[in-house]
Amino acid sequence: MCELLGMECNVPTDIAFSFTGLKTRGGRTAHHQDGWGLALYQGRAARVFLEPTAAANSPLARFIAENPDKTLLAIGHIRKRTRGAISLANTHPFVRELWGRHWVFAHNGTVRAASKLKLGRFKPIGTTDSEHAYCHLLEGLRSSFKDYPKQPSELWQAVADVARGIGARGTFNFLLGDGRHLYARCATKLCFLIRRAPFGEARLSDEDVAIDFSKVTGPRDRVVVVSTVPLTRNEAWTHGDPGKMWVFDQGALRATLSA
Amino acid sequence: MCELLGMECNVPTDIAFSFTGLKTRGGRTAHHQDGWGLALYQGRAARVFLEPTAAANSPLARFIAENPDKTLLAIGHIRKRTRGAISLANTHPFVRELWGRHWVFAHNGTVRAASKLKLGRFKPIGTTDSEHAYCHLLEGLRSSFKDYPKQPSELWQAVADVARGIGARGTFNFLLGDGRHLYARCATKLCFLIRRAPFGEARLSDEDVAIDFSKVTGPRDRVVVVSTVPLTRNEAWTHGDPGKMWVFDQGALRATLSA
Repeated sequence: MCELLGMECNVPTDIAFSFTGLKTRGGRTAHHQDGWGLALYQGRAARVFLEPTAAANSPLARFIAENPDKTLLAIGHIRKRTRGAISLANTHPFVRELWGRHWVFAHNGTVRAASKLKLGRFKPIGTTDSEHAYCHLLEGLRSSFKDYPKQPSELWQAVADVARGIGARGTFNFLLGDGRHLYARCATKLCFLIRRAPFGEARLSDEDVAIDFSKVTGPRDRVVVVSTVPLTRNEAWTHGDPGKMWVFDQGALRATLSA
Repeated sequence: MCELLGMECNVPTDIAFSFTGLKTRGGRTAHHQDGWGLALYQGRAARVFLEPTAAANSPLARFIAENPDKTLLAIGHIRKRTRGAISLANTHPFVRELWGRHWVFAHNGTVRAASKLKLGRFKPIGTTDSEHAYCHLLEGLRSSFKDYPKQPSELWQAVADVARGIGARGTFNFLLGDGRHLYARCATKLCFLIRRAPFGEARLSDEDVAIDFSKVTGPRDRVVVVSTVPLTRNEAWTHGDPGKMWVFDQGALRATLSA
């Protein structure tokens, strides 16, 4: 099993604190030593850092945690291999361009017989069930709309509908970003919180690290954090229900759909 | 104008030396301060580092130069903005997936009326002439073959044919990688060399840095380096002719095509 991390905000926010929590779990406090990745959006484009090694010991992961980059939308992943060799091509998150924007995807779980899911214009580069399922998902969206829908709720529903079909084949917890929304589907394990005023101190579960957000935030800031397991021990995380998908935008929960 | 750097080898090779030469030109010894990028292939997948700031002062660029990663194929770029704002989306190299492999592209020059070049399934994320031309180029390949051609020379010719059409609209020096080949088209300025046994010392043009390759290479190693201008001052670089495209594979020049 792998672990997911997502962040979606209404003002550019530094993901270093949460990423520090996640990367510690990548090979030190948990067994997710087979790769890690982090995608940071700037508008419709994403910068993606990937490494097919343990995050906990990675100089690059440490560099990113120490040189934080502010973003409105980020997706991170640490990998414990279940299907597919350890390689760059099999390292999440996966990225494709659709409708002139990057789509970023990370998966936790295993999709059975994923190779039977129909593909169209998006082809897997690696050999994971995750990337195959992702290519199928994107093809489902592409074939439903000519361009990025003007009515976002139509897009949310389309994501939920394709995800439901894939989810019937196994465990399909995922995070998906389109440069504007963060989609988070729960199959077995996923939780989120929204940090907003009045901000307080948060303390990481896996490291002896705390941050007082009241010192680094403004009164209107809203920051959604989504994670496989709660990353902090003194905040109230909302746990997801199997077969539900959250859609976040501007640091707020916009919809909870059956998926 | 921008500067290009490509490397293509028969054994995994560290690009740190050449990248150090390039990044110095990104804002210090030359005026290319508007962004930099470096793509490093591992098989059919590429890791891409991008930053819309000057390479010469970038902590990330320094980190990469100091923590070298071996690869068979790499493409780097430093940007001096001509068209399109300074942003992540406008930072080269650009990446798309086609036929289950990453295609990486970096451009030097300006293509006139690029937005009139017909697009298909690949859409620009940013606003540069370069990315638009790249999307047109990939669509030309996609529509010519159902899958990655078994006969590589057919693919080389197809790249050359589409490139020629784009090249008629302006200055189209580019590097293109498909995970196996490095394509390098000269419009105005491009040069290459092949390092092979007996290896000697190379000295960077822009930094007081030298490396004795005989100490870090084997007798069968072959390393192609392609660059806008010679990066070293004591090696013999071959300069390209306008309208010609080189194709490199396994550290050797496989073809020179009209393009």
